[in-house]
Amino acid sequence: MLILALESTAKAASVALVQDGVMLGQTTQLSGLTHSRTLLPMAEDLMKNTGFKVSDVDGFAVAHGPGSFTGVRIGVSAVKGLAWAAQKPACGVSTLGAMAWNGVAAGEGSLICCCMDARRSQVYNALFEVRDGRPERLCEDRAISVEALLEELKSNDWTPFLVGDGAELCAKAFRAADFSFTIAPENLRHQSAWGVAMAAQEADFVSGDKLQPVYLRLSQAERERQARLSQN
Amino acid sequence: MLILALESTAKAASVALVQDGVMLGQTTQLSGLTHSRTLLPMAEDLMKNTGFKVSDVDGFAVAHGPGSFTGVRIGVSAVKGLAWAAQKPACGVSTLGAMAWNGVAAGEGSLICCCMDARRSQVYNALFEVRDGRPERLCEDRAISVEALLEELKSNDWTPFLVGDGAELCAKAFRAADFSFTIAPENLRHQSAWGVAMAAQEADFVSGDKLQPVYLRLSQAERERQARLSQN
Repeated sequence: MLILALESTAKAASVALVQDGVMLGQTTQLSGLTHSRTLLPMAEDLMKNTGFKVSDVDGFAVAHGPGSFTGVRIGVSAVKGLAWAAQKPACGVSTLGAMAWNGVAAGEGSLICCCMDARRSQVYNALFEVRDGRPERLCEDRAISVEALLEELKSNDWTPFLVGDGAELCAKAFRAADFSFTIAPENLRHQSAWGVAMAAQEADFVSGDKLQPVYLRLSQAERERQARLSQN
Repeated sequence: MLILALESTAKAASVALVQDGVMLGQTTQLSGLTHSRTLLPMAEDLMKNTGFKVSDVDGFAVAHGPGSFTGVRIGVSAVKGLAWAAQKPACGVSTLGAMAWNGVAAGEGSLICCCMDARRSQVYNALFEVRDGRPERLCEDRAISVEALLEELKSNDWTPFLVGDGAELCAKAFRAADFSFTIAPENLRHQSAWGVAMAAQEADFVSGDKLQPVYLRLSQAERERQARLSQN
């Protein structure tokens, strides 16, 4: 199965082409340019440079969140469009579940701690253990304070391998608390579309119109609206 | 310093843009298409999608070998051309030293064993240890039989983390000998231009005309010529 995977949930933009678990190509960038400018040209260039056409793809995969609301919408919308135009199925996977594949390098039995900066002193987080060369999920995706995450890791006597754009945020707090951890090196720190494709291989492909963004938390506009409503 | 790095020493083709140690973008592909068709278009697309021009680059880096003779020539020639046209310095680094950066994820104190398939039952190999988040070289680049490498690892009681396109070749032999090792996951197995840029940051940049391919072994044509000469 040839999968074209897109990742745009945070600063990194990433596209990957994976065939039956083998990575044929991947482009990732952290230029800070908006994903609406970069993501589809990156996909087009990757296909061109690897000699494939969109019609060769068997399914499109995307990290459907959590993450930046705008980033999630761009990725999910792009894959909806691709799936519709190419008449091929699509698959949305957890950003954290996809990112966990970056942690497999830490070795069997390692505890992968996926962290995205969710602002307001929180991280989007999920924990995984490396089993048989793949990340096995230990808890659901959640928004959690760095302090609560630290307490949970401590109480379980885990030494986490931190991945994600929130890894440095956690590392800073963990260092201050004299808590032992490993942080993924630069090349594994950020979201990768390869991880999206690997996670998609273990998930269901559906019709593109079924794809939904997964935000985990209410948007700022919704929070403010609820606060106004509760005051009235 | 903004570095544009190229890697084309084996099946993978990879280009990366790294600024002061921070990866701004990377494209890697394993499509099997010839590097002379893919490498420079990949570089051009990466620059375009990250919003940089060739004139923004402060230096060009390349894996100068060991590796496929044709692949090494394509990479070194491309960087010579870029450096000449842009009037910027260039840096050639060991393919194995660049690849070792992929092994840093294995963690402090890990023994990184870089392996490229050199045919004729040999691998191009060098050993590194992860120290302070970077690979510290333990031996020079060499062409060595898989059996001799296994004996050396055994006698030092090392558990290697295998990276490179020769990792699977070594893994097969090590498994047969019931020798314990870890093999890099798919996303770290192959040469990456990010590693080339990281290695270049610790090396000297020179005028592009000083760049030389490093083959380690004689080419097949040279071996056959020497054999013929020694018979006469």
